[in-house]
Amino acid sequence: MNFNPQISNLPIYEAGKPIELVIREFGINPKDIIKLASNENPLGCSPLALEAMEKSIKSANLYPDDSYYELKESLANLYMVNSKNIVIGSGSDQVIEFIMHAKLDPNKAILSAGVTFAMYGIYAQHIGAKIYKTTSPNHDLNELKALYNQHKNEIKVIFLCLPNNPLGECLDASEVYEFISGVDSDTLVVIDGAYMEFAKFKDNKKAINPKDIVLLSNAIYLGTFSKAYGLGGMRVGYGIANELIINGVSKLRAPFNITTPSLAAAIAAIKDQNFIDQTLQNNLKEMSIYEKFAQDNHIEFIPSYTNFITFVFDNNKNSTKICDNLLRKGIILRNLQSYGLNAIRITIGTKEQNIKVLEALKKEI
Amino acid sequence: MNFNPQISNLPIYEAGKPIELVIREFGINPKDIIKLASNENPLGCSPLALEAMEKSIKSANLYPDDSYYELKESLANLYMVNSKNIVIGSGSDQVIEFIMHAKLDPNKAILSAGVTFAMYGIYAQHIGAKIYKTTSPNHDLNELKALYNQHKNEIKVIFLCLPNNPLGECLDASEVYEFISGVDSDTLVVIDGAYMEFAKFKDNKKAINPKDIVLLSNAIYLGTFSKAYGLGGMRVGYGIANELIINGVSKLRAPFNITTPSLAAAIAAIKDQNFIDQTLQNNLKEMSIYEKFAQDNHIEFIPSYTNFITFVFDNNKNSTKICDNLLRKGIILRNLQSYGLNAIRITIGTKEQNIKVLEALKKEI
Repeated sequence: MNFNPQISNLPIYEAGKPIELVIREFGINPKDIIKLASNENPLGCSPLALEAMEKSIKSANLYPDDSYYELKESLANLYMVNSKNIVIGSGSDQVIEFIMHAKLDPNKAILSAGVTFAMYGIYAQHIGAKIYKTTSPNHDLNELKALYNQHKNEIKVIFLCLPNNPLGECLDASEVYEFISGVDSDTLVVIDGAYMEFAKFKDNKKAINPKDIVLLSNAIYLGTFSKAYGLGGMRVGYGIANELIINGVSKLRAPFNITTPSLAAAIAAIKDQNFIDQTLQNNLKEMSIYEKFAQDNHIEFIPSYTNFITFVFDNNKNSTKICDNLLRKGIILRNLQSYGLNAIRITIGTKEQNIKVLEALKKEI
Repeated sequence: MNFNPQISNLPIYEAGKPIELVIREFGINPKDIIKLASNENPLGCSPLALEAMEKSIKSANLYPDDSYYELKESLANLYMVNSKNIVIGSGSDQVIEFIMHAKLDPNKAILSAGVTFAMYGIYAQHIGAKIYKTTSPNHDLNELKALYNQHKNEIKVIFLCLPNNPLGECLDASEVYEFISGVDSDTLVVIDGAYMEFAKFKDNKKAINPKDIVLLSNAIYLGTFSKAYGLGGMRVGYGIANELIINGVSKLRAPFNITTPSLAAAIAAIKDQNFIDQTLQNNLKEMSIYEKFAQDNHIEFIPSYTNFITFVFDNNKNSTKICDNLLRKGIILRNLQSYGLNAIRITIGTKEQNIKVLEALKKEI
């Protein structure tokens, strides 16, 4: 059995035991495990979303309303756009997948920052498209512009991860709009705003407004319910762009791409902006504790506009060793060696979680 | 903004208001609406699955364990295969999508029965692959063989929908195995068993056994939790095949492609084979009432191995008109005019639902 050449070149995914099971083998009680590795919301989700899910699971036998009418209307109100400007994905990841399949083929390319969300590259590999990255790990606009101009005929999708995962830095909105204006009308600039709620709460200069994006002919804004909204396990994301782009991208959406409780949860979550405020306030307050820890202990960190902080270690320390040692204590953090960085990404947890993590980390450095 | 040529040719999806909202405009109370259009389980889902979801939604902020370790182990036990023979999809639809992207390009083709599950053709169109269909609406193996032999170099995926949606007929397992043995090792035969639980309960000669499929080099079995398991709204399906095929297909699976409660529900649902038995017994018993109705009223129907029955009307009747009239009474059935048939597909409901549907239908014929 042969597979398409680009598939054959991809690594085989070797699923291991869940990390929670591994930790249990160290004799740690599941309720004592602290997982701050996937930028999930430590406060859970809105009680309104929980209530909506409780009701909705009684209809788990029924497919969701595939028009996503109410969810699109709610998002349209939230962002002051039209529901025709919106496409719903199983996480914003899936919207990225739609974009890739709509715009790319093995003769086309994507462009991104040197260190950014891994799925951009993975989806490009699914298609066999080429991947251009800046040598700079973060979003260096001069380098992005130069690479774009050099490979204009190939580059059909440009990713700006704002703020950037896994580093945490964020371009100003004014810089982003200026950059988009220099990109051809047939190249789609994807503004991945998965963590945008955190960025604009910290600094309004970072706020990319979807209602400005829908006026452009070559940009799409991606949002998610996985981070600030605390619904990572429910897999709901969205794309917002002008109607022509949404029409093109939506053609690749299969019916029922989100679940019945996910739809109910997302609609309810939008109604509870108080929960978002609590999330953002906890995040900023607790982030400052990580920053102070880093300064006090002479650890380099990247000022973060997200719900995580990245500690970069010098050659005296090894991020893999630190992560392994913490794992034995039931603490799961994200080692960034796979991104080529001697660094650890830590999701900002609850006050109680953060105290324990920093206590354990103190012993490792 | 240009899109890939195969995308440009696809129709734009025009999402309307949910049908339930339309019916409410006729002054019908939502609780009086009877929806037997999407082959959902009228008995709901297993109480064990419901309980698992109730617990799981409290972790809606957390991504699922992406190894799907426990679910794969449970499926492996159920079907007496190895967990390495299994890939998990967001519905078996998504496994179809993986297969298409792994095997096809615009120079390749798929082959299927004349009237079968619409997503086969839609996913092929996403890629720009060619679609060969038999002139016979149902699975005519001679015609399938002839078409395959005629276009052997192009046809890389063959779909056998067993039993067939939306018609309801089903090939015998022995015929299927004989057919597969005549197909080249580089062409993948997809046995879509979405309704297989119903077929094998009615007639064991229809039973395709995944543990036989994993021994073959060119076949994959698809199953779903959407039908007999009553979890249509949770979007969980799976593919079972030999490890080489699973490795190839799995490369296209993005992480976290099912939700946290979906994973919990599926694991729990497998444990409750009593619920499946109840479902299958209700279905067979109530199916016979529809058959008798059809015979008594001289309506042609296709003997069904599924949880739905298809009534085919002669030229004196129009399925669109009948469906529209029933809609005004709050009854939603599936008109098959879009498949080129003057026919209606009715999901077998509960006893109470079926009485009401047949009463209303009686007035239309």
